Amino acid sequence: MQNFQYYAPTKVVFGKDTETETGKLIKEQGGSRVLLHYGGSSAKKSGLLDRICASLEKEGISYVCLGGVKPNPRLSLVREGIELCKKEKVDFLLAVGGGSVIDSAKAIGYGLANEGDVWDFYAQKRTASACMPVGTVLTIAAAGSEMSNSSVITKEEGWIKRGYSSNYCRCRFAVMNPELTYTLPKYQTASGCVDIILHTMERYFSKESGTMLTDSLAEGLMRTVMNNAKVLMKDPQNYEARAQIMWAGSLSHNGLTGCGMTEDWASHQLEHELSAMFDVAHGAGLAAIWGSWARYVYMEKPERFAQYGVNVLGIPMDCSNFARTALQSIEETERFFQALEMPISIHELGYDLTEEQLQELAFKCSNEDKRTIGGFRVLNREDMLKIYRMAK
Amino acid sequence: MQNFQYYAPTKVVFGKDTETETGKLIKEQGGSRVLLHYGGSSAKKSGLLDRICASLEKEGISYVCLGGVKPNPRLSLVREGIELCKKEKVDFLLAVGGGSVIDSAKAIGYGLANEGDVWDFYAQKRTASACMPVGTVLTIAAAGSEMSNSSVITKEEGWIKRGYSSNYCRCRFAVMNPELTYTLPKYQTASGCVDIILHTMERYFSKESGTMLTDSLAEGLMRTVMNNAKVLMKDPQNYEARAQIMWAGSLSHNGLTGCGMTEDWASHQLEHELSAMFDVAHGAGLAAIWGSWARYVYMEKPERFAQYGVNVLGIPMDCSNFARTALQSIEETERFFQALEMPISIHELGYDLTEEQLQELAFKCSNEDKRTIGGFRVLNREDMLKIYRMAK
Repeated sequence: MQNFQYYAPTKVVFGKDTETETGKLIKEQGGSRVLLHYGGSSAKKSGLLDRICASLEKEGISYVCLGGVKPNPRLSLVREGIELCKKEKVDFLLAVGGGSVIDSAKAIGYGLANEGDVWDFYAQKRTASACMPVGTVLTIAAAGSEMSNSSVITKEEGWIKRGYSSNYCRCRFAVMNPELTYTLPKYQTASGCVDIILHTMERYFSKESGTMLTDSLAEGLMRTVMNNAKVLMKDPQNYEARAQIMWAGSLSHNGLTGCGMTEDWASHQLEHELSAMFDVAHGAGLAAIWGSWARYVYMEKPERFAQYGVNVLGIPMDCSNFARTALQSIEETERFFQALEMPISIHELGYDLTEEQLQELAFKCSNEDKRTIGGFRVLNREDMLKIYRMAK
Repeated sequence: MQNFQYYAPTKVVFGKDTETETGKLIKEQGGSRVLLHYGGSSAKKSGLLDRICASLEKEGISYVCLGGVKPNPRLSLVREGIELCKKEKVDFLLAVGGGSVIDSAKAIGYGLANEGDVWDFYAQKRTASACMPVGTVLTIAAAGSEMSNSSVITKEEGWIKRGYSSNYCRCRFAVMNPELTYTLPKYQTASGCVDIILHTMERYFSKESGTMLTDSLAEGLMRTVMNNAKVLMKDPQNYEARAQIMWAGSLSHNGLTGCGMTEDWASHQLEHELSAMFDVAHGAGLAAIWGSWARYVYMEKPERFAQYGVNVLGIPMDCSNFARTALQSIEETERFFQALEMPISIHELGYDLTEEQLQELAFKCSNEDKRTIGGFRVLNREDMLKIYRMAK
């Protein structure tokens, strides 16, 4: 078990009608002039933005709007947001949406609280020393950005997708009303569930030992998401199932499921290149990659995959042959992805890639052959290429 | 599933040698003049206080000392602390110890940040509007006060033990080095483990439904504590087991295991009167009471106790007779307490109470017949008396 820090200061306000508390929560944080940041038109059409605006007005909080955040949020809009906020003297950033909107708000926050070009942080050229306060009304359960320290931005020039993490950007509050996720398309719901499970898997698949508590929390979380994701495929307006998934999304990425672990994150890195190049839904991209990653690495410590299979999927343990139980757990996970109508290959994701494109993915993912990825098994460019080929 | 708020902003710094970071953590919080608050002489003898003082001095932080906190911390010392801190212009309270020391520091914090008598808050006469910042170096895994919003103080006049809860008192940071708990006497280790399990049980035994995620986290936590508590009975210097228990202690009482639940807390209320009257170890008192409480209430919803038995204790489910599985789970839990050499009656706790004393306990616990307790089953004075008699 590794030493660890756990710091998840976001105030979560969870349940029905909680969006009406938004104004009060911003006031509590000292905000008086807000950027209302959002994505497409659904928040407007559903009346959610109106309810939030009413809640701000009730507290005497003024606001300016900036919509148009796209999945895999773009640097150009971040820059636009920074300029707008400077001009409008904004002191609080409210993200109404899912991970993309929150990540965009976090990037705007970095840009406002630090001198120089905001992309520098994502390019790992320097570190931020502050971030303007961000809060969120969450409408998609997936990315976990509402409690996490991370944000991921895509630079259109070269379609480079990069993440930056620091405690400064953690949301001051997160309003989570599971009802707001009722109208998500099936594909997006499923993709979100995969993302949530993967956030825990990236921490769970580790060679660490002596982490029974973190393991049991992670296993319980994964079981819960798998169980309730299937409910939502048939009954998308099931409040309890939406609630379990939504809360799991936050706990999966706020650090809790990684306490004491050495983490992996290879699947995420492999997928980031895919979704930067082809603009696919992040969760779907993860589903397309994960099985190939797992088959490539599981022999590093088959007991770990076997434990996952037994404790999460209910596969009987074969202690004389961990590898067999491990392989079964990988197959069973892919069957779960398929039950959610998620792809388990890049082909099923909708792309038939040439060898040249696979090479390009591996080249980019290895940062032009300058980095390795993965903690469970360290992967170099050659390994990445092999996994992309397996996932083809 | 109930709406809920989850707010656990304490920065946890967990692992070996982490106490050397104390000075840095206080500086991060803006502290420059510290009250070093502790209990008996063990922190001095072990060299822990010296290591912490060195860490403060390294950061140029000055301090005054106030030791002598006893289990079930006393109001008189809290008052002494308030006077000392005013005189010495202290701006940060550092609790080095377990729940009693942290609770004492929190009470001092309330006294410093609010006008008037600090007992008013515990007597529920008024609410606090602030608390001086508190941080801790934890040396006992039990109370969970390092991440909780609560503190419990005993007023010597009449031996009244009362709790007060607010987010203001939450520790800014908690340094947790499991090695610091190696030298705890067996009885105190066991008592701490019972307290940790009970903090989750008080939230878990609920008539709420649709809380699969919270349930699975709670069940995993209880399994982990039971498993590792038994390890510590034989091998008190087992780092991994100490670490699981210590981290479980914080997560058990920071709100995580209660998200979405209606909570119970009857066992704690029943025990508070016991330990106020007889100054027994809190966890041991809980073990002495719990089985009687459980037998008195389980028929309200035997399925819940059956689920606990199956998911935490591994008892086979008998779906044709939940009550049977429920009763087995209560018996099995008492056997676990016995395996830790914990009492399962007030007699075993060391006291043979007269009917008059039992009446007095029920009278006090019902706040002179003016309150009921419990969420799983609401209990009045008569119920309390019956449970005390069963636990006799």
